[in-house]
Amino acid sequence: MDQSVKPSQWVTETFEGQVQFGFPRSEILFSEQSAFQTVEVVQSPTHGRILLNDGCFMLSERDEFIYHETMAHIPMFLHPNPRNALVIGGGDGGTARELLRHASLESCVLVEIDEAVVRACKEFIPQTASVFSSPRLKTFIEDGIAWVERAAKEGTQKFDVICVDSTDPVGFAQPLFGDEFYANLKKILSPNGIIVSQAESPFYAEKMQKTLARVLKNHFKRVHFLNFTNMTYPGGLWSFSYATDAIHPIDDLSASRIAASGLSFKWYNSGIHEGAFLLPEFQKNHLKEYLNPL
Amino acid sequence: MDQSVKPSQWVTETFEGQVQFGFPRSEILFSEQSAFQTVEVVQSPTHGRILLNDGCFMLSERDEFIYHETMAHIPMFLHPNPRNALVIGGGDGGTARELLRHASLESCVLVEIDEAVVRACKEFIPQTASVFSSPRLKTFIEDGIAWVERAAKEGTQKFDVICVDSTDPVGFAQPLFGDEFYANLKKILSPNGIIVSQAESPFYAEKMQKTLARVLKNHFKRVHFLNFTNMTYPGGLWSFSYATDAIHPIDDLSASRIAASGLSFKWYNSGIHEGAFLLPEFQKNHLKEYLNPL
Repeated sequence: MDQSVKPSQWVTETFEGQVQFGFPRSEILFSEQSAFQTVEVVQSPTHGRILLNDGCFMLSERDEFIYHETMAHIPMFLHPNPRNALVIGGGDGGTARELLRHASLESCVLVEIDEAVVRACKEFIPQTASVFSSPRLKTFIEDGIAWVERAAKEGTQKFDVICVDSTDPVGFAQPLFGDEFYANLKKILSPNGIIVSQAESPFYAEKMQKTLARVLKNHFKRVHFLNFTNMTYPGGLWSFSYATDAIHPIDDLSASRIAASGLSFKWYNSGIHEGAFLLPEFQKNHLKEYLNPL
Repeated sequence: MDQSVKPSQWVTETFEGQVQFGFPRSEILFSEQSAFQTVEVVQSPTHGRILLNDGCFMLSERDEFIYHETMAHIPMFLHPNPRNALVIGGGDGGTARELLRHASLESCVLVEIDEAVVRACKEFIPQTASVFSSPRLKTFIEDGIAWVERAAKEGTQKFDVICVDSTDPVGFAQPLFGDEFYANLKKILSPNGIIVSQAESPFYAEKMQKTLARVLKNHFKRVHFLNFTNMTYPGGLWSFSYATDAIHPIDDLSASRIAASGLSFKWYNSGIHEGAFLLPEFQKNHLKEYLNPL
Protein backbone atom coordinates (compact mmCIF):
# COMPACT_ATOMS: atom_id res chain seq x y z
CA MET A 1 0.00 0.00 0.00
CA ASP A 2 0.91 3.63 -0.32
CA GLN A 3 3.11 4.80 2.52
CA SER A 4 2.81 8.53 2.05
CA VAL A 5 2.85 9.15 5.79
CA LYS A 6 6.27 8.14 7.05
CA PRO A 7 6.29 8.65 10.79
CA SER A 8 9.64 8.03 12.35
CA GLN A 9 8.06 5.86 15.02
CA TRP A 10 5.08 3.69 15.67
CA VAL A 11 3.27 2.92 18.88
CA THR A 12 2.57 -0.80 18.86
CA GLU A 13 0.62 -3.29 20.94
CA THR A 14 1.41 -6.99 21.01
CA PHE A 15 -1.69 -8.92 22.03
CA GLU A 16 -1.01 -12.29 23.63
CA GLY A 17 1.63 -13.11 21.05
CA GLN A 18 -1.14 -13.40 18.45
CA VAL A 19 -1.44 -9.97 16.89
CA GLN A 20 0.75 -6.93 16.68
CA PHE A 21 -0.74 -3.64 15.63
CA GLY A 22 0.12 -0.03 15.83
CA PHE A 23 -0.27 3.51 14.64
CA PRO A 24 2.16 6.24 13.69
CA ARG A 25 3.14 8.44 16.56
CA SER A 26 4.91 11.74 16.93
CA GLU A 27 5.20 12.82 20.58
CA ILE A 28 4.83 10.90 23.82
CA LEU A 29 2.74 13.31 25.88
CA PHE A 30 2.42 11.38 29.12
CA SER A 31 4.19 8.34 30.49
CA GLU A 32 3.99 7.24 34.07
CA GLN A 33 4.17 4.07 36.09
CA SER A 34 1.18 4.39 38.42
CA ALA A 35 0.44 2.11 41.38
CA PHE A 36 -1.50 -0.12 38.98
CA GLN A 37 -0.08 0.09 35.48
CA THR A 38 1.91 2.13 33.03
CA VAL A 39 -0.22 4.94 31.66
CA GLU A 40 0.75 6.61 28.40
CA VAL A 41 -0.74 9.20 26.09
CA VAL A 42 0.85 9.54 22.66
CA GLN A 43 0.09 11.84 19.76
CA SER A 44 -0.60 10.11 16.44
CA PRO A 45 -0.68 12.12 13.21
CA THR A 46 -3.39 9.80 11.87
CA HIS A 47 -5.42 8.72 14.93
CA GLY A 48 -5.22 11.71 17.26
CA ARG A 49 -4.27 11.20 20.86
CA ILE A 50 -4.06 7.63 22.03
CA LEU A 51 -4.28 6.29 25.60
CA LEU A 52 -2.43 3.08 26.50
CA ASN A 53 -2.52 1.18 29.78
CA ASP A 54 0.28 -1.37 30.20
CA GLY A 55 1.02 -1.05 26.49
CA CYS A 56 -2.54 -1.89 25.40
CA PHE A 57 -4.57 0.61 23.37
CA MET A 58 -7.48 1.93 25.41
CA LEU A 59 -8.75 4.56 23.02
CA SER A 60 -7.82 6.87 20.19
CA GLU A 61 -9.46 10.22 19.59
CA ARG A 62 -10.27 9.04 16.09
CA ASP A 63 -12.41 6.06 16.99
CA GLU A 64 -13.39 6.35 20.66
CA PHE A 65 -16.88 7.44 19.61
CA ILE A 66 -17.70 3.86 18.65
CA TYR A 67 -16.96 2.29 22.02
CA HIS A 68 -18.43 5.10 24.09
CA GLU A 69 -21.61 5.66 22.08
CA THR A 70 -22.29 1.92 22.10
CA MET A 71 -21.69 1.44 25.83
CA ALA A 72 -23.76 4.45 26.90
CA HIS A 73 -26.65 4.82 24.48
CA ILE A 74 -27.74 1.21 24.25
CA PRO A 75 -28.81 1.07 27.92
CA MET A 76 -29.84 4.74 28.07
CA PHE A 77 -32.35 4.41 25.24
CA LEU A 78 -33.66 1.08 26.55
CA HIS A 79 -34.29 2.09 30.15
CA PRO A 80 -37.68 3.84 30.40
CA ASN A 81 -36.45 6.64 32.66
CA PRO A 82 -32.74 6.53 33.52
CA ARG A 83 -31.94 8.98 36.32
CA ASN A 84 -28.81 7.57 37.96
CA ALA A 85 -25.87 5.94 36.24
CA LEU A 86 -22.70 4.31 37.52
CA VAL A 87 -19.47 3.83 35.58
CA ILE A 88 -16.90 1.41 36.97
CA GLY A 89 -13.53 2.23 35.40
CA GLY A 90 -13.84 4.50 32.40
CA GLY A 91 -11.28 6.95 33.76
CA ASP A 92 -10.87 8.53 30.33
CA GLY A 93 -14.36 10.00 30.75
CA GLY A 94 -15.76 8.91 27.38
CA THR A 95 -18.58 6.73 28.69
CA ALA A 96 -19.64 9.34 31.27
CA ARG A 97 -19.56 12.01 28.56
CA GLU A 98 -22.04 10.05 26.44
CA LEU A 99 -24.27 9.12 29.41
CA LEU A 100 -24.51 12.75 30.48
CA ARG A 101 -25.66 13.89 27.06
CA HIS A 102 -29.04 12.54 28.17
CA ALA A 103 -30.81 15.37 29.94
CA SER A 104 -32.91 12.90 31.95
CA LEU A 105 -29.82 11.69 33.79
CA GLU A 106 -29.68 13.45 37.13
CA SER A 107 -26.34 12.06 38.24
CA CYS A 108 -23.51 9.85 37.14
CA VAL A 109 -21.06 8.27 39.56
CA LEU A 110 -17.68 7.22 38.17
CA VAL A 111 -15.30 5.01 40.14
CA GLU A 112 -11.82 4.75 38.68
CA ILE A 113 -9.04 2.91 40.49
CA ASP A 114 -6.16 4.79 38.89
CA GLU A 115 -5.90 8.54 39.39
CA ALA A 116 -3.09 8.66 36.83
CA VAL A 117 -5.54 7.71 34.05
CA VAL A 118 -7.91 10.52 35.00
CA ARG A 119 -5.05 12.98 35.37
CA ALA A 120 -3.48 12.03 32.04
CA CYS A 121 -6.79 12.30 30.20
CA LYS A 122 -7.77 15.58 31.85
CA GLU A 123 -4.52 17.09 30.69
CA PHE A 124 -4.13 15.51 27.26
CA ILE A 125 -7.46 14.05 26.11
CA PRO A 126 -10.09 16.69 26.88
CA GLN A 127 -12.15 15.19 24.05
CA THR A 128 -13.26 12.57 26.57
CA ALA A 129 -12.13 13.98 29.90
CA SER A 130 -13.64 17.46 29.85
CA VAL A 131 -16.73 15.73 31.28
CA PHE A 132 -14.97 15.66 34.67
CA SER A 133 -15.99 19.28 35.17
CA SER A 134 -19.70 18.39 34.86
CA PRO A 135 -21.65 19.13 38.06
CA ARG A 136 -23.71 15.98 37.41
CA LEU A 137 -20.60 13.76 37.50
CA LYS A 138 -19.32 12.53 40.86
CA THR A 139 -15.87 10.93 40.59
CA PHE A 140 -14.31 8.57 43.13
CA ILE A 141 -10.72 7.44 42.84
CA GLU A 142 -11.07 4.01 44.39
CA ASP A 143 -11.14 0.31 43.59
CA GLY A 144 -14.52 -0.27 41.90
CA ILE A 145 -14.82 -3.69 43.56
CA ALA A 146 -14.56 -2.17 47.03
CA TRP A 147 -16.80 0.76 46.17
CA VAL A 148 -19.54 -1.51 44.85
CA GLU A 149 -19.22 -3.88 47.84
CA ARG A 150 -19.68 -0.99 50.24
CA ALA A 151 -22.56 0.51 48.27
CA ALA A 152 -24.24 -2.92 48.24
CA LYS A 153 -23.91 -3.19 52.03
CA GLU A 154 -25.18 0.32 52.64
CA GLY A 155 -28.09 -0.27 50.30
CA THR A 156 -28.91 3.42 49.96
CA GLN A 157 -28.07 4.00 46.26
CA LYS A 158 -29.70 2.38 43.24
CA PHE A 159 -28.60 2.81 39.64
CA ASP A 160 -30.67 2.52 36.47
CA VAL A 161 -27.70 2.08 34.17
CA ILE A 162 -24.35 0.59 35.13
CA CYS A 163 -21.41 0.54 32.71
CA VAL A 164 -18.45 -1.66 33.59
CA ASP A 165 -15.86 0.08 31.46
CA SER A 166 -12.86 -1.96 32.51
CA THR A 167 -9.49 -2.91 31.11
CA ASP A 168 -8.66 -6.52 30.26
CA PRO A 169 -9.25 -9.25 32.87
CA VAL A 170 -5.69 -9.46 34.11
CA GLY A 171 -4.22 -8.24 37.41
CA PHE A 172 -6.31 -5.75 39.35
CA ALA A 173 -9.17 -5.83 36.81
CA GLN A 174 -9.67 -9.62 37.06
CA PRO A 175 -12.36 -9.53 39.82
CA LEU A 176 -14.43 -7.19 37.61
CA PHE A 177 -15.29 -10.30 35.60
CA GLY A 178 -16.19 -12.37 38.69
CA ASP A 179 -19.25 -13.66 40.52
CA GLU A 180 -18.96 -11.65 43.71
CA PHE A 181 -18.72 -8.35 41.87
CA TYR A 182 -21.89 -9.03 39.90
CA ALA A 183 -23.72 -10.25 43.02
CA ASN A 184 -22.97 -6.86 44.55
CA LEU A 185 -23.85 -4.93 41.38
CA LYS A 186 -27.22 -6.67 41.39
CA LYS A 187 -27.90 -5.22 44.84
CA ILE A 188 -27.38 -1.65 43.66
CA LEU A 189 -29.25 -2.03 40.37
CA SER A 190 -32.77 -0.63 40.22
CA PRO A 191 -35.54 -3.11 39.24
CA ASN A 192 -35.52 -2.04 35.57
CA GLY A 193 -31.75 -1.52 35.63
CA ILE A 194 -29.32 -2.55 32.89
CA ILE A 195 -25.64 -3.44 33.18
CA VAL A 196 -23.40 -3.18 30.11
CA SER A 197 -19.84 -4.48 30.54
CA GLN A 198 -16.67 -4.58 28.47
CA ALA A 199 -16.45 -8.23 27.42
CA GLU A 200 -13.34 -8.64 25.29
CA SER A 201 -12.93 -10.18 21.84
CA PRO A 202 -15.18 -12.95 20.51
CA PHE A 203 -12.19 -14.22 18.51
CA TYR A 204 -9.43 -14.06 21.07
CA ALA A 205 -11.26 -14.41 24.39
CA GLU A 206 -13.74 -17.23 23.87
CA LYS A 207 -13.08 -18.74 27.30
CA MET A 208 -13.41 -15.43 29.12
CA GLN A 209 -16.67 -14.61 27.32
CA LYS A 210 -18.12 -17.93 28.46
CA THR A 211 -17.00 -17.32 32.04
CA LEU A 212 -18.57 -13.86 32.08
CA ALA A 213 -21.80 -15.10 30.48
CA ARG A 214 -22.06 -17.83 33.14
CA VAL A 215 -21.50 -15.31 35.95
CA LEU A 216 -24.16 -12.98 34.55
CA LYS A 217 -26.65 -15.83 34.15
CA ASN A 218 -26.25 -16.58 37.88
CA HIS A 219 -27.63 -13.18 38.76
CA PHE A 220 -29.81 -11.81 35.98
CA LYS A 221 -32.94 -13.05 34.21
CA ARG A 222 -31.80 -11.76 30.83
CA VAL A 223 -28.27 -11.99 29.46
CA HIS A 224 -27.09 -10.99 25.98
CA PHE A 225 -23.88 -10.09 24.27
CA LEU A 226 -23.55 -7.35 21.69
CA ASN A 227 -20.76 -6.65 19.25
CA PHE A 228 -19.20 -3.55 17.83
CA THR A 229 -15.99 -2.81 16.04
CA ASN A 230 -13.00 -0.72 17.03
CA MET A 231 -10.01 0.37 15.00
CA THR A 232 -7.70 0.15 17.99
CA TYR A 233 -8.55 -3.25 19.50
CA PRO A 234 -6.96 -6.51 18.37
CA GLY A 235 -9.00 -8.25 15.68
CA GLY A 236 -11.37 -5.28 15.29
CA LEU A 237 -14.47 -7.04 16.61
CA TRP A 238 -15.28 -6.55 20.29
CA SER A 239 -18.12 -7.37 22.67
CA PHE A 240 -20.06 -5.90 25.52
CA SER A 241 -22.27 -8.01 27.74
CA TYR A 242 -25.80 -6.92 28.61
CA ALA A 243 -27.57 -8.02 31.79
CA THR A 244 -30.94 -7.07 33.22
CA ASP A 245 -33.94 -8.60 34.91
CA ALA A 246 -36.40 -6.68 32.86
CA ILE A 247 -35.67 -5.06 29.55
CA HIS A 248 -35.55 -6.76 26.16
CA PRO A 249 -32.65 -5.23 24.22
CA ILE A 250 -34.45 -5.04 20.87
CA ASP A 251 -38.22 -5.28 21.51
CA ASP A 252 -38.08 -2.57 24.16
CA LEU A 253 -36.24 -0.07 21.96
CA SER A 254 -38.29 2.79 20.58
CA ALA A 255 -36.66 4.34 17.52
CA SER A 256 -38.89 7.40 17.92
CA ARG A 257 -37.39 8.03 21.35
CA ILE A 258 -33.93 8.23 19.77
CA ALA A 259 -35.20 10.80 17.28
CA ALA A 260 -37.05 12.72 20.00
CA SER A 261 -33.88 12.98 22.11
CA GLY A 262 -32.45 15.45 19.63
CA LEU A 263 -29.02 13.87 20.15
CA SER A 264 -26.80 13.27 17.15
CA PHE A 265 -24.34 10.43 16.86
CA LYS A 266 -21.43 9.30 14.73
CA TRP A 267 -21.94 5.58 15.32
CA TYR A 268 -25.18 4.86 17.18
CA ASN A 269 -28.63 4.63 15.60
CA SER A 270 -31.57 2.25 15.97
CA GLY A 271 -30.22 -0.09 13.28
CA ILE A 272 -26.78 -0.27 14.88
CA HIS A 273 -28.46 -0.87 18.24
CA GLU A 274 -30.45 -3.80 16.91
CA GLY A 275 -27.70 -5.21 14.71
CA ALA A 276 -25.22 -5.23 17.59
CA PHE A 277 -27.20 -7.95 19.38
CA LEU A 278 -27.33 -10.20 16.30
CA LEU A 279 -24.27 -12.34 16.88
CA PRO A 280 -22.29 -14.42 14.41
CA GLU A 281 -23.01 -18.12 14.43
CA PHE A 282 -19.79 -19.23 16.13
CA GLN A 283 -20.27 -16.84 19.04
CA LYS A 284 -23.98 -17.63 19.39
CA ASN A 285 -23.16 -21.32 19.58
CA HIS A 286 -20.31 -20.79 21.98
CA LEU A 287 -22.46 -18.85 24.45
CA LYS A 288 -25.81 -20.54 23.86
CA GLU A 289 -26.14 -22.09 27.33
CA TYR A 290 -26.16 -18.64 28.86
CA LEU A 291 -27.72 -16.21 26.39
CA ASN A 292 -31.46 -15.58 26.27
CA PRO A 293 -33.13 -15.96 22.90
CA LEU A 294 -33.79 -12.64 21.19
CA MET B 1 -0.43 -8.37 27.53
CA ASP B 2 0.87 -11.88 27.92
CA GLN B 3 3.37 -12.76 25.25
CA SER B 4 3.53 -16.51 25.73
CA VAL B 5 3.92 -17.15 22.01
CA LYS B 6 7.24 -15.70 20.95
CA PRO B 7 7.61 -16.26 17.25
CA SER B 8 10.95 -15.27 15.90
CA GLN B 9 9.30 -13.28 13.14
CA TRP B 10 6.14 -11.45 12.30
CA VAL B 11 4.47 -10.90 8.96
CA THR B 12 3.33 -7.29 8.92
CA GLU B 13 1.25 -5.05 6.66
CA THR B 14 1.59 -1.28 6.64
CA PHE B 15 -1.65 0.25 5.40
CA GLU B 16 -1.28 3.70 3.84
CA GLY B 17 1.08 4.80 6.60
CA GLN B 18 -1.89 4.76 8.98
CA VAL B 19 -1.90 1.31 10.54
CA GLN B 20 0.63 -1.45 10.93
CA PHE B 21 -0.53 -4.90 11.88
CA GLY B 22 0.79 -8.38 11.76
CA PHE B 23 0.72 -11.94 12.92
CA PRO B 24 3.42 -14.36 14.06
CA ARG B 25 4.85 -16.42 11.27
CA SER B 26 7.02 -19.47 11.01
CA GLU B 27 7.70 -20.49 7.39
CA ILE B 28 7.34 -18.61 4.12
CA LEU B 29 5.69 -21.26 1.94
CA PHE B 30 5.37 -19.34 -1.32
CA SER B 31 6.87 -16.12 -2.57
CA GLU B 32 6.78 -15.02 -6.16
CA GLN B 33 6.73 -11.84 -8.18
CA SER B 34 3.98 -12.50 -10.72
CA ALA B 35 3.19 -10.32 -13.73
CA PHE B 36 0.82 -8.34 -11.49
CA GLN B 37 1.99 -8.40 -7.88
CA THR B 38 4.03 -10.20 -5.29
CA VAL B 39 2.17 -13.26 -4.08
CA GLU B 40 3.10 -14.81 -0.74
CA VAL B 41 1.77 -17.57 1.48
CA VAL B 42 3.15 -17.74 5.00
CA GLN B 43 2.46 -20.13 7.85
CA SER B 44 1.34 -18.52 11.10
CA PRO B 45 1.28 -20.54 14.34
CA THR B 46 -1.78 -18.57 15.47
CA HIS B 47 -3.71 -17.73 12.27
CA GLY B 48 -2.99 -20.66 9.97
CA ARG B 49 -1.85 -20.02 6.45
CA ILE B 50 -1.99 -16.44 5.29
CA LEU B 51 -2.12 -15.10 1.71
CA LEU B 52 -0.60 -11.71 0.93
CA ASN B 53 -0.68 -9.80 -2.36
CA ASP B 54 1.80 -6.94 -2.57
CA GLY B 55 2.32 -7.19 1.17
CA CYS B 56 -1.39 -6.79 2.00
CA PHE B 57 -3.24 -9.52 3.87
CA MET B 58 -5.81 -11.18 1.63
CA LEU B 59 -6.93 -13.95 3.95
CA SER B 60 -5.93 -16.15 6.85
CA GLU B 61 -7.20 -19.68 7.35
CA ARG B 62 -8.38 -18.63 10.78
CA ASP B 63 -10.82 -15.93 9.72
CA GLU B 64 -11.48 -16.30 5.99
CA PHE B 65 -14.90 -17.80 6.78
CA ILE B 66 -16.19 -14.34 7.67
CA TYR B 67 -15.41 -12.68 4.35
CA HIS B 68 -16.38 -15.64 2.19
CA GLU B 69 -19.60 -16.59 3.97
CA THR B 70 -20.72 -12.96 3.88
CA MET B 71 -19.93 -12.39 0.22
CA ALA B 72 -21.54 -15.63 -0.99
CA HIS B 73 -24.54 -16.36 1.22
CA ILE B 74 -26.05 -12.90 1.35
CA PRO B 75 -26.87 -12.88 -2.39
CA MET B 76 -27.45 -16.63 -2.60
CA PHE B 77 -30.18 -16.63 0.05
CA LEU B 78 -31.78 -13.48 -1.37
CA HIS B 79 -32.02 -14.53 -4.99
CA PRO B 80 -35.13 -16.68 -5.47
CA ASN B 81 -33.42 -19.30 -7.63
CA PRO B 82 -29.71 -18.75 -8.23
CA ARG B 83 -28.44 -21.06 -10.96
CA ASN B 84 -25.38 -19.27 -12.37
CA ALA B 85 -22.78 -17.30 -10.45
CA LEU B 86 -19.74 -15.29 -11.51
CA VAL B 87 -16.74 -14.44 -9.36
CA ILE B 88 -14.38 -11.73 -10.57
CA GLY B 89 -11.08 -12.18 -8.77
CA GLY B 90 -11.31 -14.47 -5.76
CA GLY B 91 -8.37 -16.57 -6.92
CA ASP B 92 -8.03 -18.11 -3.48
CA GLY B 93 -11.29 -19.99 -4.16
CA GLY B 94 -13.04 -19.09 -0.88
CA THR B 95 -16.00 -17.25 -2.40
CA ALA B 96 -16.55 -19.95 -5.04
CA ARG B 97 -16.36 -22.62 -2.32
CA GLU B 98 -19.20 -20.97 -0.39
CA LEU B 99 -21.29 -20.30 -3.52
CA LEU B 100 -21.02 -23.93 -4.59
CA ARG B 101 -22.26 -25.22 -1.24
CA HIS B 102 -25.69 -24.27 -2.61
CA ALA B 103 -26.98 -27.31 -4.50
CA SER B 104 -29.20 -25.09 -6.66
CA LEU B 105 -26.17 -23.50 -8.26
CA GLU B 106 -25.58 -25.21 -11.58
CA SER B 107 -22.37 -23.43 -12.45
CA CYS B 108 -19.91 -20.90 -11.18
CA VAL B 109 -17.50 -19.02 -13.42
CA LEU B 110 -14.38 -17.58 -11.79
CA VAL B 111 -12.15 -15.09 -13.62
CA GLU B 112 -8.84 -14.43 -11.89
CA ILE B 113 -6.17 -12.27 -13.51
CA ASP B 114 -3.22 -13.79 -11.70
CA GLU B 115 -2.48 -17.48 -12.18
CA ALA B 116 0.15 -17.26 -9.42
CA VAL B 117 -2.58 -16.64 -6.83
CA VAL B 118 -4.53 -19.70 -7.93
CA ARG B 119 -1.37 -21.82 -8.08
CA ALA B 120 -0.15 -20.69 -4.64
CA CYS B 121 -3.54 -21.37 -3.05
CA LYS B 122 -4.02 -24.73 -4.77
CA GLU B 123 -0.69 -25.86 -3.36
CA PHE B 124 -0.73 -24.24 0.07
CA ILE B 125 -4.29 -23.19 0.99
CA PRO B 126 -6.54 -26.13 0.05
CA GLN B 127 -8.95 -24.91 2.72
CA THR B 128 -10.17 -22.42 0.12
CA ALA B 129 -8.66 -23.68 -3.14
CA SER B 130 -9.75 -27.31 -3.17
CA VAL B 131 -12.89 -25.94 -4.84
CA PHE B 132 -10.93 -25.64 -8.08
CA SER B 133 -11.47 -29.36 -8.65
CA SER B 134 -15.26 -28.94 -8.61
CA PRO B 135 -16.90 -29.89 -11.94
CA ARG B 136 -19.35 -27.01 -11.43
CA LEU B 137 -16.54 -24.43 -11.29
CA LYS B 138 -15.17 -23.03 -14.56
CA THR B 139 -11.97 -21.04 -14.08
CA PHE B 140 -10.54 -18.50 -16.50
CA ILE B 141 -7.12 -16.94 -15.96
CA GLU B 142 -7.78 -13.58 -17.55
CA ASP B 143 -8.35 -9.93 -16.77
CA GLY B 144 -11.88 -9.75 -15.33
CA ILE B 145 -12.48 -6.39 -17.02
CA ALA B 146 -11.79 -7.85 -20.46
CA TRP B 147 -13.72 -11.05 -19.76
CA VAL B 148 -16.80 -9.12 -18.65
CA GLU B 149 -16.55 -6.72 -21.59
CA ARG B 150 -16.48 -9.64 -24.02
CA ALA B 151 -19.30 -11.47 -22.25
CA ALA B 152 -21.38 -8.27 -22.37
CA LYS B 153 -20.80 -7.97 -26.12
CA GLU B 154 -21.60 -11.61 -26.80
CA GLY B 155 -24.72 -11.38 -24.63
CA THR B 156 -25.13 -15.15 -24.35
CA GLN B 157 -24.49 -15.61 -20.62
CA LYS B 158 -26.51 -14.21 -17.72
CA PHE B 159 -25.62 -14.52 -14.05
CA ASP B 160 -27.93 -14.50 -11.05
CA VAL B 161 -25.20 -13.71 -8.54
CA ILE B 162 -22.00 -11.82 -9.27
CA CYS B 163 -19.26 -11.43 -6.65
CA VAL B 164 -16.54 -8.88 -7.33
CA ASP B 165 -13.91 -10.31 -5.01
CA SER B 166 -11.12 -7.92 -5.84
CA THR B 167 -7.99 -6.58 -4.20
CA ASP B 168 -7.66 -2.90 -3.30
CA PRO B 169 -8.38 -0.24 -5.96
CA VAL B 170 -4.79 0.38 -6.96
CA GLY B 171 -2.96 -0.65 -10.14
CA PHE B 172 -4.59 -3.35 -12.22
CA ALA B 173 -7.61 -3.62 -9.89
CA GLN B 174 -8.55 0.07 -10.20
CA PRO B 175 -11.00 -0.32 -13.14
CA LEU B 176 -12.93 -2.89 -11.08
CA PHE B 177 -14.29 0.08 -9.14
CA GLY B 178 -15.22 2.03 -12.29
CA ASP B 179 -18.27 2.94 -14.33
CA GLU B 180 -17.51 1.00 -17.48
CA PHE B 181 -17.01 -2.24 -15.62
CA TYR B 182 -20.39 -1.96 -13.89
CA ALA B 183 -22.11 -0.95 -17.15
CA ASN B 184 -20.85 -4.22 -18.59
CA LEU B 185 -21.72 -6.25 -15.48
CA LYS B 186 -25.26 -4.95 -15.74
CA LYS B 187 -25.52 -6.45 -19.23
CA ILE B 188 -24.66 -9.93 -18.00
CA LEU B 189 -26.79 -9.79 -14.85
CA SER B 190 -30.11 -11.61 -14.94
CA PRO B 191 -33.22 -9.48 -14.17
CA ASN B 192 -33.35 -10.56 -10.50
CA GLY B 193 -29.56 -10.63 -10.29
CA ILE B 194 -27.46 -9.31 -7.40
CA ILE B 195 -23.90 -7.98 -7.42
CA VAL B 196 -21.87 -7.99 -4.21
CA SER B 197 -18.48 -6.26 -4.39
CA GLN B 198 -15.50 -5.80 -2.09
CA ALA B 199 -15.79 -2.16 -1.05
CA GLU B 200 -12.89 -1.39 1.31
CA SER B 201 -12.94 0.17 4.78
CA PRO B 202 -15.60 2.65 5.93
CA PHE B 203 -12.94 4.26 8.13
CA TYR B 204 -10.00 4.44 5.76
CA ALA B 205 -11.64 4.57 2.34
CA GLU B 206 -14.45 7.08 2.65
CA LYS B 207 -13.73 8.66 -0.73
CA MET B 208 -13.54 5.36 -2.55
CA GLN B 209 -16.79 4.16 -0.99
CA LYS B 210 -18.53 7.27 -2.24
CA THR B 211 -17.11 6.82 -5.73
CA LEU B 212 -18.24 3.20 -5.86
CA ALA B 213 -21.70 4.05 -4.51
CA ARG B 214 -22.09 6.73 -7.21
CA VAL B 215 -21.04 4.31 -9.94
CA LEU B 216 -23.49 1.67 -8.73
CA LYS B 217 -26.33 4.19 -8.51
CA ASN B 218 -25.75 5.01 -12.21
CA HIS B 219 -26.65 1.47 -13.17
CA PHE B 220 -28.85 -0.17 -10.55
CA LYS B 221 -32.22 0.67 -8.99
CA ARG B 222 -31.18 -0.48 -5.56
CA VAL B 223 -27.80 0.17 -3.93
CA HIS B 224 -26.77 -0.70 -0.38
CA PHE B 225 -23.59 -1.20 1.56
CA LEU B 226 -23.12 -3.89 4.17
CA ASN B 227 -20.45 -4.27 6.81
CA PHE B 228 -18.63 -7.16 8.36
CA THR B 229 -15.49 -7.53 10.38
CA ASN B 230 -12.22 -9.25 9.61
CA MET B 231 -9.27 -10.00 11.86
CA THR B 232 -6.80 -9.48 9.04
CA TYR B 233 -7.95 -6.20 7.46
CA PRO B 234 -6.85 -2.77 8.68
CA GLY B 235 -9.26 -1.32 11.21
CA GLY B 236 -11.27 -4.53 11.45
CA LEU B 237 -14.46 -3.14 9.89
CA TRP B 238 -14.94 -3.72 6.16
CA SER B 239 -17.68 -3.21 3.57
CA PHE B 240 -19.23 -4.90 0.60
CA SER B 241 -21.50 -3.07 -1.79
CA TYR B 242 -24.82 -4.56 -2.87
CA ALA B 243 -26.46 -3.68 -6.19
CA THR B 244 -29.59 -5.02 -7.85
CA ASP B 245 -32.63 -3.87 -9.76
CA ALA B 246 -34.99 -6.08 -7.88
CA ILE B 247 -34.28 -7.61 -4.52
CA HIS B 248 -34.60 -5.91 -1.13
CA PRO B 249 -31.69 -7.09 1.01
CA ILE B 250 -33.70 -7.53 4.22
CA ASP B 251 -37.40 -7.74 3.33
CA ASP B 252 -36.75 -10.40 0.69
CA LEU B 253 -34.79 -12.67 3.03
CA SER B 254 -36.58 -15.75 4.26
CA ALA B 255 -35.00 -17.11 7.43
CA SER B 256 -36.79 -20.41 6.90
CA ARG B 257 -34.98 -20.85 3.59
CA ILE B 258 -31.66 -20.64 5.40
CA ALA B 259 -32.78 -23.35 7.81
CA ALA B 260 -34.18 -25.47 4.97
CA SER B 261 -30.88 -25.35 3.09
CA GLY B 262 -29.32 -27.65 5.66
CA LEU B 263 -26.10 -25.65 5.40
CA SER B 264 -24.18 -24.79 8.56
CA PHE B 265 -22.09 -21.67 9.00
CA LYS B 266 -19.52 -20.22 11.33
CA TRP B 267 -20.42 -16.58 10.70
CA TYR B 268 -23.59 -16.25 8.62
CA ASN B 269 -27.14 -16.44 9.93
CA SER B 270 -30.32 -14.44 9.33
CA GLY B 271 -29.45 -11.96 12.11
CA ILE B 272 -25.96 -11.36 10.76
CA HIS B 273 -27.47 -10.95 7.29
CA GLU B 274 -29.88 -8.28 8.46
CA GLY B 275 -27.48 -6.57 10.85
CA ALA B 276 -24.83 -6.24 8.14
CA PHE B 277 -26.98 -3.76 6.21
CA LEU B 278 -27.61 -1.56 9.26
CA LEU B 279 -24.79 0.94 8.90
CA PRO B 280 -23.24 3.23 11.49
CA GLU B 281 -24.42 6.82 11.41
CA PHE B 282 -21.24 8.33 9.93
CA GLN B 283 -21.22 5.89 7.01
CA LYS B 284 -24.97 6.23 6.39
CA ASN B 285 -24.58 10.01 6.25
CA HIS B 286 -21.52 9.81 4.06
CA LEU B 287 -23.25 7.64 1.45
CA LYS B 288 -26.81 8.91 1.79
CA GLU B 289 -27.08 10.42 -1.69
CA TYR B 290 -26.56 7.00 -3.21
CA LEU B 291 -27.99 4.40 -0.85
CA ASN B 292 -31.62 3.33 -0.99
CA PRO B 293 -33.58 3.49 2.26
CA LEU B 294 -33.96 0.12 3.93
